[in-house]
Amino acid sequence: MTQAARGSLMAAEVAEQPQSLARLLDTGLDSIRTVASRVREASPRFALLCARGTSDHAALYFKYLLEVRLQIPVGLVSPSTFTAYGARPRLNDVLWVAVSQSGGSPDLVDSTAAARAGGALTIAVTNAPSSPLAEAGELHVDVDSGPERAVAATKSYTSQLLALYLLADAWAGGDASLARNVPELAQQVVDAGGGARVAPRYRFVEKIVTTARGYAYPTAREAALKLMETCYLSAHPFSGADLMHGPLAMIDDTHPVIAIVPEGIGGAAIQPVLERLRENKADVLVVGDPQRAAGAAALIALPPGIAEEVSPIIQIIPLQQLAHAMSVARGYDPDAPRGLRKVTETH
Amino acid sequence: MTQAARGSLMAAEVAEQPQSLARLLDTGLDSIRTVASRVREASPRFALLCARGTSDHAALYFKYLLEVRLQIPVGLVSPSTFTAYGARPRLNDVLWVAVSQSGGSPDLVDSTAAARAGGALTIAVTNAPSSPLAEAGELHVDVDSGPERAVAATKSYTSQLLALYLLADAWAGGDASLARNVPELAQQVVDAGGGARVAPRYRFVEKIVTTARGYAYPTAREAALKLMETCYLSAHPFSGADLMHGPLAMIDDTHPVIAIVPEGIGGAAIQPVLERLRENKADVLVVGDPQRAAGAAALIALPPGIAEEVSPIIQIIPLQQLAHAMSVARGYDPDAPRGLRKVTETH
Repeated sequence: MTQAARGSLMAAEVAEQPQSLARLLDTGLDSIRTVASRVREASPRFALLCARGTSDHAALYFKYLLEVRLQIPVGLVSPSTFTAYGARPRLNDVLWVAVSQSGGSPDLVDSTAAARAGGALTIAVTNAPSSPLAEAGELHVDVDSGPERAVAATKSYTSQLLALYLLADAWAGGDASLARNVPELAQQVVDAGGGARVAPRYRFVEKIVTTARGYAYPTAREAALKLMETCYLSAHPFSGADLMHGPLAMIDDTHPVIAIVPEGIGGAAIQPVLERLRENKADVLVVGDPQRAAGAAALIALPPGIAEEVSPIIQIIPLQQLAHAMSVARGYDPDAPRGLRKVTETH
Repeated sequence: MTQAARGSLMAAEVAEQPQSLARLLDTGLDSIRTVASRVREASPRFALLCARGTSDHAALYFKYLLEVRLQIPVGLVSPSTFTAYGARPRLNDVLWVAVSQSGGSPDLVDSTAAARAGGALTIAVTNAPSSPLAEAGELHVDVDSGPERAVAATKSYTSQLLALYLLADAWAGGDASLARNVPELAQQVVDAGGGARVAPRYRFVEKIVTTARGYAYPTAREAALKLMETCYLSAHPFSGADLMHGPLAMIDDTHPVIAIVPEGIGGAAIQPVLERLRENKADVLVVGDPQRAAGAAALIALPPGIAEEVSPIIQIIPLQQLAHAMSVARGYDPDAPRGLRKVTETH
């Protein structure tokens, strides 16, 4: 048996996303609608989201969806307040959503159990329906992306995003129409290979900043995490507004920036940040709308007409490709980054 | 008139913190107690905190205080959901706290006005009682740290932390006893000059990671921001648990780590992270408890017996000193970092 090429697992899982997304739409939507109807009955006033790593970026996306579309205030939970400090808040009228690929991290399981005991309606969103987290939650959403074997999460992330979109949309009484063409758009972006195409210009980069505003901000965070995990470079995400409050000082022409610039409100809101970066002579890669890429040093154009609410599901794909290509070019193995395990147990 | 030395403003403001903290305790406590009694009457179910940059780290500290001590679930607000996306959630039973040194950023002013209109009890915490933000909030807490002239915020940050501690403590019915010796402890740490002492070993560092858990996590974030602003290096903060989920891969013996390790629960909770860092041969500077610094490459010991709840007010001081000393050694001016303005206007 021949040895698999370095990164072949991650490459296959990146390429598989159109299929895993299509499967979730085809076979998962009914069950998500059932969960959404339970949430509507409960009519929560406030939502708390609990996750770590890549799943935390899916939770952040859900935060924007709930705040903007459902008008529900949202908190991102620090599990340590429950597990280390023993906080036991009263949580009636609260929706608690824990997101985890493996469903195995003890701090998520324990804090979800505490939230349920405190009166919250709890939902576990996992890729592992038999996991301890799935059992700890009163309700469960299976993101059904299939076994993920590369340590760097890819297809489980986009399936989490789609599952959370479908949940928010069903809760709001929507018909999932914006999500229908997501698998097809994902296929176009996979086939275009935009991330691999721009990878050579970053061959020797040691530090990089990613930035976005609004719905695209989770993409900036997840892209940075992928680059850290697979390429061991210092990749630092900032919301566009936070970047202006201090970190802008560190950016010069040796410190490249990746900006996610979608169509819609988030892409408009990041324009003043792009102007300041231009003044500082920063080298900017724009991922998104080619109409909003003036002055960019490089561009990964995404297909036109993607609704901003679902665009994070598509935006991350070329950035996964970029991380993969950079990692392999540097002689690393993105399937098995040094020092990491697939299931991270934190307490 | 002779030209002031580079960094003299920041150095003076760092050294002034024992006095600004003592002043707040002496003259600000009554007014903070009045605000706290209004909060107790309102008896909010949730809190939403809204801030940017350094002030966002003070807000994060307040999040831990409210969740652990008051058992109130907390969300950190993305102002863009209000200002860019136009979210207008129903906010009765909600406490809204906006934190800003200058009180001048339009997105904070606008989102605070929207929160007030939505039924929240709103508090503005500023160093500028006549600012637009102070006027937008129904209640106001003046952190009273005096005019801050260096662009990198230092004394306004520790005064924000103390003001928020006093607010949470008064809300919980406390008598501010844990805060009484904070000015004296701050003076000891200013005098010890621990940050300047370790600065030479970081002379040529280009990237660094800061980490902590629980109450100390805001310190890790604020230390990283100071290093970015004043030294232009890539300083990346992680909660200890998040560091284990991926970013650990990038840390090797060329990528130093600063770990905040207080006495108390947070210092215990970070121990598994320190063990993993040792396995990866990371170079770790421990700031905090010398009893918990086994295997560290360097140590800034803090005085013993600081209560964990107030320790962030003390911990940041040597890290401000470190940022200042590194900046001056590199020939930069920490008083006026390139590309930054004192008041950052984001929308």
